[in-house]
Amino acid sequence: MTDVLLRGGLPWGLGAPADILVREGRVDRVSLGPIEAPGARVFDVAGQLVLPGLVEAHCHLDKTLYGGPWVPHSADDTLSGRIANDLGRRAELGVPSVARIAALLERMSAAGTTHVRTHTDIDPVAGLRGVEAVREAAAGSPVDVRQVAFPQHGVLTSPGTAELLEEALKSGVEAVGGLDPAGIDRDPVRHLDLIFGLAGRYGAHLDIHLHDGGSLGGWELELIIERTKALGLGGRVAVSHAYALGQLDDAHQDRLVEGLAEAGVAVVTAAVYSFPVPPVSKLRAAGVTVACGHDGIRDLWGPYGSGDMLERAMHLAYRSTFRRDDDIELALEAATVGGARALGLDDYGLAPGDRADLVVVPAGSPAEAVVVHPARTLVMKDGVVLHN
Amino acid sequence: MTDVLLRGGLPWGLGAPADILVREGRVDRVSLGPIEAPGARVFDVAGQLVLPGLVEAHCHLDKTLYGGPWVPHSADDTLSGRIANDLGRRAELGVPSVARIAALLERMSAAGTTHVRTHTDIDPVAGLRGVEAVREAAAGSPVDVRQVAFPQHGVLTSPGTAELLEEALKSGVEAVGGLDPAGIDRDPVRHLDLIFGLAGRYGAHLDIHLHDGGSLGGWELELIIERTKALGLGGRVAVSHAYALGQLDDAHQDRLVEGLAEAGVAVVTAAVYSFPVPPVSKLRAAGVTVACGHDGIRDLWGPYGSGDMLERAMHLAYRSTFRRDDDIELALEAATVGGARALGLDDYGLAPGDRADLVVVPAGSPAEAVVVHPARTLVMKDGVVLHN
Ligand SMILES: [Zn+2]
Ligand SMILES: [Zn+2]
Repeated sequence: MTDVLLRGGLPWGLGAPADILVREGRVDRVSLGPIEAPGARVFDVAGQLVLPGLVEAHCHLDKTLYGGPWVPHSADDTLSGRIANDLGRRAELGVPSVARIAALLERMSAAGTTHVRTHTDIDPVAGLRGVEAVREAAAGSPVDVRQVAFPQHGVLTSPGTAELLEEALKSGVEAVGGLDPAGIDRDPVRHLDLIFGLAGRYGAHLDIHLHDGGSLGGWELELIIERTKALGLGGRVAVSHAYALGQLDDAHQDRLVEGLAEAGVAVVTAAVYSFPVPPVSKLRAAGVTVACGHDGIRDLWGPYGSGDMLERAMHLAYRSTFRRDDDIELALEAATVGGARALGLDDYGLAPGDRADLVVVPAGSPAEAVVVHPARTLVMKDGVVLHN
Repeated sequence: MTDVLLRGGLPWGLGAPADILVREGRVDRVSLGPIEAPGARVFDVAGQLVLPGLVEAHCHLDKTLYGGPWVPHSADDTLSGRIANDLGRRAELGVPSVARIAALLERMSAAGTTHVRTHTDIDPVAGLRGVEAVREAAAGSPVDVRQVAFPQHGVLTSPGTAELLEEALKSGVEAVGGLDPAGIDRDPVRHLDLIFGLAGRYGAHLDIHLHDGGSLGGWELELIIERTKALGLGGRVAVSHAYALGQLDDAHQDRLVEGLAEAGVAVVTAAVYSFPVPPVSKLRAAGVTVACGHDGIRDLWGPYGSGDMLERAMHLAYRSTFRRDDDIELALEAATVGGARALGLDDYGLAPGDRADLVVVPAGSPAEAVVVHPARTLVMKDGVVLHN
């Protein structure tokens, strides 16, 4: 494996230009002075920001229509309409499609995403076909893809789903999902007990879609915090969306944020549409892991999404009304180290010994990289230059 | 002037591929069958959408730092902090800068913007320097730039400003602005009477920044509607932002929307940050003109903004939770014909006789053009190909 030398870039957090030597798939040295590396492949990245690989912490690869012709959205404006539309048109549009998923992974990779966690629909009709399609596309991609067995159509309300979730975990799926334990599945205690039980038994991560808002969503967060503590699953549980966090009053918010921090529950946000965005600054100040993802990308649930995590970080920063560089940097953190923490990635970062998953952005600062999100000039995964 | 033939594009609204012949700066013919035009410069735009020129209906060219190095935002999170920051750092950063304004106009033009309405700061310290800087930059640009004399630091609360607004109008500035007549200028009736009086006397347009929210903003909208009707200024009055419209309950919203429609008051929205977005569908259904703009682009008030009106339309559609093509198209309408109507542009559109301000987008549908906002492949102003 040829050594790679990135010459004169601006490694995020270092505050000065440095050379980075990559050897055997790892960051070997980071030096303020010039590194001599005979035989290394050298890239001059002077003046450009060097980031660790971008982490897409919440998407739905199995649903995507990416790379195909434009498909006008055909659902009405209700949730039930979107569910019916999804179920009704999947077959016609060939969803899940290995080719579409592969096209999206290729786009993500070109934009510097090195790790993805994707929620894959599990239901009695589709069975594990989505899991298999994602696996097949991921096998041909340099992106590290982890799946969440996702009960899109409920668990308790969709008989047979619990067994399929378990089957998915047995087959090696890394995480189990949940979905509005109260609002959709109608029995939050049994829903959560079931999926926490699965996570505990299979040593899996847990990532729960929680759109339920206001005091209901707040109470469900309490249930999640309680179970995470009781089962000692801290660091392996995430709540996605958590709209309620962005809706409650300050005191209620503070109490929940403290609970999430104590329990080690991460918050994953996509900052989609006009839905409430969790209070990123407050969560980070309390030590809660915040990760970021696109949610759906060009699918039957909505036509938006580009696959570029710097653009997604822009949306998060923008919806958080972040103007100052250090605030905007919190969104970049969510799209990188925050995601890495939520997914439990090892050896992630820019320090010697870390995996050489590196992204070069023609921007002079982290905030500029987020706001402008210019095309990446170099992407490397495990020391292999994929795009430049 | 050489004729130009756009071959096989998809003129917005036509529903079929057509040839467009441009002659003497105007759309000469639009034909479903092939046009023979010996001597014409021919562009094959098959499969690409052809739009009329994009209209940036609300920006602040005079404030921009565009095209220069990244300037980290240095204000705190209060309005007074942002005002003090703006006043304190303008001189140091050389604002207003003809070069920066010219750089932004060049970027806008490359992205297909053919018309701009910009709010230029008028205050006793800056005087009309902003107006002059914008004029100088605009003189060297193909973009049609119209200014609003904008009392950024109040009118009644900033003695001398009213006289400067009048001086600006005398010098040919096309519109007079206003700013939170209650929340900032503390006397909505006198504030509005003053600026409506100026608009009436000078035959100028009127575009009022209204951030005041809830019932206060709603009441100010009533004052604006009343004055527009009483003075017969329908079609020449716009309210920018109008956050209140997005906050009030349905019945209150309906009443105001009806009033705006009756009076002929346009709504201009930028869909910035997490601020409320006016109800675009409802406004359009009632016949209210809706226009769109960036608000600030890379300035001391915030670091965001690209100058691309298709991207801005995406933000508007996204924040409006528009998923279906016909809804997303409303955002495109705001960035084109809505802006043209608000600014009072003549001969705007794709019909024979209209000015040949044309933009070609490599997208198969209006919704795709908004969501993906790919780089423009051709931009024409008054029949002259500027970018291709
Ligand atoms: Zn999701
Ligand atoms: Zn403004």
